[in-house]
Amino acid sequence: MSFIKTPAVPVESINPKVKDCEYAVRGEIFNHAQRLQEELEKNPGSRPFDEITYCNLGNPQALGQKPITFFRQVLALCEYPALLDSDEAHKIFSSDAISRAKKILSTLTGKSTGAYSHSKGAKGLREMIADGIALRDGYPANPEDIFLTDGASAAVHMIMQLLIRSENDGILCPIPQYPLYSAAITLHGGTLVPYYLSESNNWGLEVFELKGRLDLARENGISVKAMVVINPGNPTGQVLSESNQQEIVELCRKEGLVLLADEVYQDNVYVKDKKFISFKRIIRSGYRDDEISVVSFQSISKGYYGECGKRGGYIELCGFREDVKDQIYKVASVNLCSNTTGQILASLIMNPPKPGEESHKLFFSEKEAILSSLGRRAKALEDAFNSMEGVSCQKAEGAMYLFPRIKLPNKAIDAADKAGMVPDAFYALRLLDATGLVLVPGSGFGQVPGTWHVRTTILPDESKIPDIVSRLKTFHESFMREFQD
Amino acid sequence: MSFIKTPAVPVESINPKVKDCEYAVRGEIFNHAQRLQEELEKNPGSRPFDEITYCNLGNPQALGQKPITFFRQVLALCEYPALLDSDEAHKIFSSDAISRAKKILSTLTGKSTGAYSHSKGAKGLREMIADGIALRDGYPANPEDIFLTDGASAAVHMIMQLLIRSENDGILCPIPQYPLYSAAITLHGGTLVPYYLSESNNWGLEVFELKGRLDLARENGISVKAMVVINPGNPTGQVLSESNQQEIVELCRKEGLVLLADEVYQDNVYVKDKKFISFKRIIRSGYRDDEISVVSFQSISKGYYGECGKRGGYIELCGFREDVKDQIYKVASVNLCSNTTGQILASLIMNPPKPGEESHKLFFSEKEAILSSLGRRAKALEDAFNSMEGVSCQKAEGAMYLFPRIKLPNKAIDAADKAGMVPDAFYALRLLDATGLVLVPGSGFGQVPGTWHVRTTILPDESKIPDIVSRLKTFHESFMREFQD
Repeated sequence: MSFIKTPAVPVESINPKVKDCEYAVRGEIFNHAQRLQEELEKNPGSRPFDEITYCNLGNPQALGQKPITFFRQVLALCEYPALLDSDEAHKIFSSDAISRAKKILSTLTGKSTGAYSHSKGAKGLREMIADGIALRDGYPANPEDIFLTDGASAAVHMIMQLLIRSENDGILCPIPQYPLYSAAITLHGGTLVPYYLSESNNWGLEVFELKGRLDLARENGISVKAMVVINPGNPTGQVLSESNQQEIVELCRKEGLVLLADEVYQDNVYVKDKKFISFKRIIRSGYRDDEISVVSFQSISKGYYGECGKRGGYIELCGFREDVKDQIYKVASVNLCSNTTGQILASLIMNPPKPGEESHKLFFSEKEAILSSLGRRAKALEDAFNSMEGVSCQKAEGAMYLFPRIKLPNKAIDAADKAGMVPDAFYALRLLDATGLVLVPGSGFGQVPGTWHVRTTILPDESKIPDIVSRLKTFHESFMREFQD
Repeated sequence: MSFIKTPAVPVESINPKVKDCEYAVRGEIFNHAQRLQEELEKNPGSRPFDEITYCNLGNPQALGQKPITFFRQVLALCEYPALLDSDEAHKIFSSDAISRAKKILSTLTGKSTGAYSHSKGAKGLREMIADGIALRDGYPANPEDIFLTDGASAAVHMIMQLLIRSENDGILCPIPQYPLYSAAITLHGGTLVPYYLSESNNWGLEVFELKGRLDLARENGISVKAMVVINPGNPTGQVLSESNQQEIVELCRKEGLVLLADEVYQDNVYVKDKKFISFKRIIRSGYRDDEISVVSFQSISKGYYGECGKRGGYIELCGFREDVKDQIYKVASVNLCSNTTGQILASLIMNPPKPGEESHKLFFSEKEAILSSLGRRAKALEDAFNSMEGVSCQKAEGAMYLFPRIKLPNKAIDAADKAGMVPDAFYALRLLDATGLVLVPGSGFGQVPGTWHVRTTILPDESKIPDIVSRLKTFHESFMREFQD
């Protein structure tokens, strides 16, 4: 007779914060899409579409976007410096890629990408980033206030870990929000304090709403420590006006909130009447350093660069005391450093080729081609959604997403209920099964109760947009017909 | 009259787990070394040494170790695939580097290193790693049980986050231990349950000691969930015998402990009578999958490759239930993926060039040169320590460190006390100021109370070892003379 032991790790015994955390962007719909993809690979023709189109995630190079040539030339030279000495180097690489790679290597520990760097990131690279920030804002940046990270996600975790002590600590987050924030707050054991963006006002941020939610949370005994602002917005695509940003900063100052400024889409603005202004610039033009604390998050994954797989990014801290910065540095040092490839790319996106340098012309044309195409794609998809019955879609002023609202028929809501699904997830699943398009249900981001949305990226190759629009429309018509009230 | 507001983040308000965590490897001695380095750069000749020698951290390329040519050729080709089409490619790159880069690119999402991969890591790369594990162990590995991470540190955090619910959950850790473990347990709010390695038995792991500590912790109400074993050992350098490994596995099975097997030094064994045996191989040769849960940690930072800055690594899970693996996958997906450069390197170290392939000869000679030199350096430093008054140093069978014990004179202990320092930190600081050598005090790793140690890496370039030995001896003699009892 043999006894089968209970395995050492039953799921009931794991950290409940891990169990409770959710991340819709790679959630159930995405997992279903991966199963469909495997099915299609085994049995081509088994579905009414030939391929899965992943619009669930801001992952440009997965959908065919080409990396910026200059950036990749510099990377190749840094990875294999023997290229610098080869006779062929000047035939293959631009002169400024060669000089940039030499400059970067000279700043790295051991002059190699293979050594751990300083835990904040290589100092020379932080200096290049500080130069880029200064040029962007018109105010100097201190390399000692910059911490390089394995993408912005790691940085968000680091800051949440620093700020959150228990479930009594709250973080104000926009609704809808990018679910990294809700997941990180759950994992670190805090409380998400929601404030709603105003859909009818092009997803604007209204300070009276914010103040009301803050007061309510405080009445409920929550110590609200920080406020997340995503600008340009994810999933909403709005770009904040300067006056709105000033109101936000003033509120944070008055209320003693750390402003967590997610600015990873700073290079993604598609409308002429808006431009990106950093929160750093707002505070530098009107506040002392001891009046307000701001963390600015930047990433190499977005913009026109889209280097998601490299996992690079940084935070810039403003208005933090030295003893708190020391604590952040200590935690960074436990993980030794972020990856040097991502660090190098972060220095490059904040310091791209300048006019007069050999690569500039090609760089500029690659950048403009990507950004102008993204603008056209955003507009085409926005128009398509707005032409569909019961769908309204705000303008994508920036970022990489649209977040259309869908008035689902009651019969569809009932059918979802019977299937044990949230209505917008039911819609997204049907859409996936019919078209191969992977969208994320609005419920993954949060929305006003009783409203339903989906989020799509604007990233499929421009040549595929007409077909995607046609598939979306055909599906939607058939869905609305099927569930007509 | 103006009021200066309290800044939004006083250090008193941050997460106490962050405040409590410590990491000696980049702690006070290291910070002092960085200040000295800046001073030397500004005023060369101002100290009795010309450079700071960082022996605090297993960071081979920081000290001049050259990366493996094949690995870096493949990376350069993956970063800038235009090289593959250039006429010059075959003049610069070996044919197997070219074919490997093509194979790797074909497995990546969007065929680009710039796209987010699957959250476990690119499937094709996990398959290559699984092949390497199977070859190492003689038992198959399942790519679905492999999770690629930004270095082993990130993996340790992930597992601690999964296992630890509160301070009532305990993790058995060797003392001395690599302080990543104590830092991660503190950050995630658990309790470190120490078991002492036996210094007189060449830092061996004694199961009766382990069982005693486990029982004691349980009597104190701690739910002990897992046991960390570092093999080869850090900071101790011991390589476990197969029979010892079997005892450990049997204890974990009986007691329902997850075995956390830190095997990042698996390619660093320097003595002929020992070899690395994975815990996976031990359990596959005698246990069913539902009897014991093991996590094996591997890293690209150590071995003969030493690609620390790239932040690559993986965990292989054995004996975990699907629902628990789903939770690990979910948490991995919140961070999207680990960096693809590190992922590629992980596939390369587990699948290096094979005999008959064009690069094999060069690869083999580079690998052997590094490993045999490391063995000689370990021996030279070990002999040096053992020749010093009051110092005894166990053999470095593997890994990259020596952990000599220093019998400090009472007067030195008193002097340390007066300076407000732990005695071994006092010794290490004096050593640094006198020689520029950066060692880590044993107190950062834990040690039997009343004993004092320092940890040094064996990584300085071999040509520098005689000078380092001489500096160590001269300093030690003078220190012992100064504090003679």
